[in-house]
Amino acid sequence: MSPRGRRPGGVDTRAAILTAARADFAEQGYDATSVRGIARRAEVDPALVHHYFGGKAKLFAAVLDIPADPAVLIGAIVHGPRERVGEALVRTFLSVWDSEEDRQRFQALLRSAVTHDEATLMLREFLTREVFGRVMRELAPAAGRSEAAGRSKVAGARELELRAGLAASQMIGLAVMRYIVELPAVVGASHDELAAMLGPTLQGYLAPDD
Amino acid sequence: MSPRGRRPGGVDTRAAILTAARADFAEQGYDATSVRGIARRAEVDPALVHHYFGGKAKLFAAVLDIPADPAVLIGAIVHGPRERVGEALVRTFLSVWDSEEDRQRFQALLRSAVTHDEATLMLREFLTREVFGRVMRELAPAAGRSEAAGRSKVAGARELELRAGLAASQMIGLAVMRYIVELPAVVGASHDELAAMLGPTLQGYLAPDD
Repeated sequence: MSPRGRRPGGVDTRAAILTAARADFAEQGYDATSVRGIARRAEVDPALVHHYFGGKAKLFAAVLDIPADPAVLIGAIVHGPRERVGEALVRTFLSVWDSEEDRQRFQALLRSAVTHDEATLMLREFLTREVFGRVMRELAPAAGRSEAAGRSKVAGARELELRAGLAASQMIGLAVMRYIVELPAVVGASHDELAAMLGPTLQGYLAPDD
Repeated sequence: MSPRGRRPGGVDTRAAILTAARADFAEQGYDATSVRGIARRAEVDPALVHHYFGGKAKLFAAVLDIPADPAVLIGAIVHGPRERVGEALVRTFLSVWDSEEDRQRFQALLRSAVTHDEATLMLREFLTREVFGRVMRELAPAAGRSEAAGRSKVAGARELELRAGLAASQMIGLAVMRYIVELPAVVGASHDELAAMLGPTLQGYLAPDD
């Protein structure tokens, strides 16, 4: 997680940055918000924002109380064997959210994203930029192969975004059934069972040729 | 939809039944609520509840403002060719929710199910009883074949419930991405595209041997 209390007054500075970030993200959305703008609002040097949070994406994760760095998780998924990217995604997702404390954070995040238009917009821009954008870049070779089969680059990029969105839809739906609706059969399923049943689905969306 | 105004005072009677049903479902959940209890609360004869709404499941759909009869939709899906049950589910789902008016109802339903514990419980019991229960009965022959391959009946029923839950998770996730988060690539996808990409997923969950 983020460093804390490295210097006297660090907690206050960190809190001030978080408060400013929350306001900026809410007012402007993810894309239009800048580290410089947040620093100005918090009346601190932009270098301190980087020092405490390591950049915009991590700051956003902190504002939304996401208990993990998405970039690290995505890296762990896409840098494994390509033919097991689907299973890796399911296992990583479950490992992050299956603790009681994290589950509560996730429920809060999901409820706010589904309920408040402001949070929905922030989350959409964040997902598009930091999650899907990253997944799409990492999986680009697959698109290259599709192009060789005669598709245009634009169609390839659009299809890749759709595929990433469908992968996200399966994981969000799993979260709703397991952590919100709490359907007994889905709550009771082990990580191994879910990896075995959902892995091929995610594999089919993200890396169908592997 | 339900019959209206068939006799003088019909609208008031119908509204009284709806109000009583809403209160009973909220207080007791789906399973513990009875048509008889609703009729008592509304101070009408139980036959009138059946006359206006045709039974508990349809009454629940009316309370939640679900714009279609789940039993009819499920029947349309499971009575088609078994090897296309996945595609049929995707197409039926999209056809119901893709009109502007129905989309608003669906958003409201989804938001309330994700936000209020009371609505979540009602919806879980309804899904388990009227949707998954029905799908599981219709797809039972597949479980029979699994049993022949050496599995016990209990394991077969549990796996079937898990499979139905995962199918629901994919459809709910699709709804979140298409109607709530509104990710451009998912919003822009045609019914044909989504049927082609999601059909195999649903087929794999619901009827993997067909």
